[in-house]
Amino acid sequence: MECVHLVLESMIAAMNIENRLKQCRPDVELAGRLFEELYTLGFDGVGITRDAYGPGENAAHALMRTEALMLGLEVKSDFAGNLHMTLPGLDRTAPRILLGSHLDTVAQGGNYDGAAGVVAGLAVVAGLIEGAIRPAVDVTVIAVRAEESGSWFPVGYPGSKAALATLPLDLLEARRKDTGRTLADHMLESGCDVNAIRRGERLLSPDNVKAYIELHIEQGPVLDTQGIPVGIVTGIPSSRRLRAGRVVGEYNHSGATPRNYRADAAIALAELAVRMDQHWETLDNTGRELVCTFCVLETTEEASFTKVPGQAQFQLDVRSIDPDNVQAMFDHLHAIVPDIEGRRRVRFELGGEGVSDGVPMNPGLRRALLRAAHAADVPCIEMPSGGGHDPVAFAQAGIPAALVFVANQNGSHNPHEAMRLDDFDHGCRVLLAWILQEAATT
Amino acid sequence: MECVHLVLESMIAAMNIENRLKQCRPDVELAGRLFEELYTLGFDGVGITRDAYGPGENAAHALMRTEALMLGLEVKSDFAGNLHMTLPGLDRTAPRILLGSHLDTVAQGGNYDGAAGVVAGLAVVAGLIEGAIRPAVDVTVIAVRAEESGSWFPVGYPGSKAALATLPLDLLEARRKDTGRTLADHMLESGCDVNAIRRGERLLSPDNVKAYIELHIEQGPVLDTQGIPVGIVTGIPSSRRLRAGRVVGEYNHSGATPRNYRADAAIALAELAVRMDQHWETLDNTGRELVCTFCVLETTEEASFTKVPGQAQFQLDVRSIDPDNVQAMFDHLHAIVPDIEGRRRVRFELGGEGVSDGVPMNPGLRRALLRAAHAADVPCIEMPSGGGHDPVAFAQAGIPAALVFVANQNGSHNPHEAMRLDDFDHGCRVLLAWILQEAATT
Repeated sequence: MECVHLVLESMIAAMNIENRLKQCRPDVELAGRLFEELYTLGFDGVGITRDAYGPGENAAHALMRTEALMLGLEVKSDFAGNLHMTLPGLDRTAPRILLGSHLDTVAQGGNYDGAAGVVAGLAVVAGLIEGAIRPAVDVTVIAVRAEESGSWFPVGYPGSKAALATLPLDLLEARRKDTGRTLADHMLESGCDVNAIRRGERLLSPDNVKAYIELHIEQGPVLDTQGIPVGIVTGIPSSRRLRAGRVVGEYNHSGATPRNYRADAAIALAELAVRMDQHWETLDNTGRELVCTFCVLETTEEASFTKVPGQAQFQLDVRSIDPDNVQAMFDHLHAIVPDIEGRRRVRFELGGEGVSDGVPMNPGLRRALLRAAHAADVPCIEMPSGGGHDPVAFAQAGIPAALVFVANQNGSHNPHEAMRLDDFDHGCRVLLAWILQEAATT
Repeated sequence: MECVHLVLESMIAAMNIENRLKQCRPDVELAGRLFEELYTLGFDGVGITRDAYGPGENAAHALMRTEALMLGLEVKSDFAGNLHMTLPGLDRTAPRILLGSHLDTVAQGGNYDGAAGVVAGLAVVAGLIEGAIRPAVDVTVIAVRAEESGSWFPVGYPGSKAALATLPLDLLEARRKDTGRTLADHMLESGCDVNAIRRGERLLSPDNVKAYIELHIEQGPVLDTQGIPVGIVTGIPSSRRLRAGRVVGEYNHSGATPRNYRADAAIALAELAVRMDQHWETLDNTGRELVCTFCVLETTEEASFTKVPGQAQFQLDVRSIDPDNVQAMFDHLHAIVPDIEGRRRVRFELGGEGVSDGVPMNPGLRRALLRAAHAADVPCIEMPSGGGHDPVAFAQAGIPAALVFVANQNGSHNPHEAMRLDDFDHGCRVLLAWILQEAATT
């Protein structure tokens, strides 16, 4: 029944939007120009660096502000430095639509991780303007601050959380890794009103935001390999991580120490990694979606030729939309560690765990985006996200949130990150069709 | 028959030597004092450093020279800087006995690796002198230069090989790792006659050396763990080593890259290590003696959280007295690498192989040393050596060579290296009993 209903819904929607889509299309030329200007602003000699709450991000915000003013949008920066570029709707008091992403990057990163979503918002809004389509409600393109928190501040989603009044205030004192200065200091320098954050002012809430939709490059190979331009994200995974795992054995002479006298930390770690990988393979074969990565796996500096390694260290990253899958991997970890310790005469020190909750994307929005893609004739699949993104913060604050992936090449967070403008155009067309479907009045 | 013969031989020898052993014993007091003086000379603030063909080794040679002169021995340094301290025998023209080892250490090493063998020679000769026992042939305590070549010069056994005229002359131009100056330069500064080496003069040969016997700390845990003071070494292993193995995969986002899209270099390397270890275990269970060590096993600097590792590197060290065992491990390596490459979408670059030939210790000497240990009532076992030692150079030059291990603690090549004087005394008593058995005339 659900399926038949969806098909009918899609057919009707497609007929309505089809005509409207003839009226307007995303301004991809504008987008291409903005990507070039962002590249020029951000190139550091190796890759792209737009540092969070610093000169790099500020410069990108200034560029978008200028562009938005030229488009005739209402422009303001909020107390947390997020940039709001608004196409007024018919009903100015109705909950608005947010289209957005972030403009900061990791150090020596790429040009598209983050920026694609902000540029997409402007390209879509420019398309509405050029098509003379007035939305029913305000459509705000939002450039959220400092999403790449892992690279700069040890704080998750400080920009969106500050605007949502969900940022723990003690994190204002967290220090940026490179400058050593606090988030509050960096915010002040970027023109923010830190006192408003301290007072707990809440700018965005389910009362005034109808939906937050983010377009983002996939960062993975799935879409590109399958030749599909767009993915509608089912959810953002929860993760459980060991950042400082250690294995302690005993350094011995590699020639003079027979097998049964060894306490080889490296071979113990190798066994742990292989057995975790085998368990992942087993779960994967039964269709359970998760990823399990030993991001770092290494003997330490003291290791050298003619020594049995006495120490090793590792970082483990387990993620899944389904927390049960993450738990299954850690159950396995805790089951095999004592076995390896006993046989190999080593001691594992797993260290602290970093845990982040995943969130499902809003089911209604996902369905609507699939309908929009269908109407716009854009091939797409549903897929989980690999990384975390600002929709987590919006969804946790009760705002319907969704994430649209665009195929890209060479992953992300590196200078080789790439995206075809044609794929980007397909992503923008899904956003545009969704607005036409949900909030277009003329 | 062999067995019965050996027992009879042992009984007769034991009866003969028993009386003589009452006459004399190794001068362990002298040895203890020499170890203390060596420690004082060599302590660098962290461990013991006696650099090869440099001030550290030279100072240790000077100390031994002084001690030997006080004992009334004939003392000379040869053209390669090896120190010969000779107790004259009845027949001065007959092939002599060499008791020796080296005095150099690795940087920040221990006090006993090497020095124990030279000090043992002096303690044994002092025992003969104190017991008024005149050997049939010259007994020379030899301090061979620069055995720790792995740490200083990239040249194996330069001191003994120069005296044996087996040193490839181009290696005289090899440069010491820390000073950058050549072996020839360092030899000149240490008073050597480098031209004699260049002329190919041969000081030591089967014509003038009856046997070379080296006492050395075990460097491994076997004797100490079993509570046995002495090991008679069966042979020195051949080794085959990969010093610069690499695995090349692809860096990807650890969250965004599903299992079947990965080219994870770290997990491929972990699988290689575990499968090599399993093969070793299989061979070990059938009694085949070898060691197989991934001394270094690591992701590279670019590895970090949220990345699937795209590169990894390793060093592999395989050793056995029996070259077939080494070959069996490398056959396995070459068989499993293509399998792992195929399944895990990575490429292994094994790099160049370092190969060193092993040598068996002289069977006649081994048997004689076992008899001597029995006569001296010293518990001992036969065992392979783990590391390489100067007996390799002597054996390769056709001189009967043997190696006697003394139990020690905390391995070697580190400041915690330790040896009990009581175990050392047992080792010296085996050497003394062997001389009494082979070459004593009064």
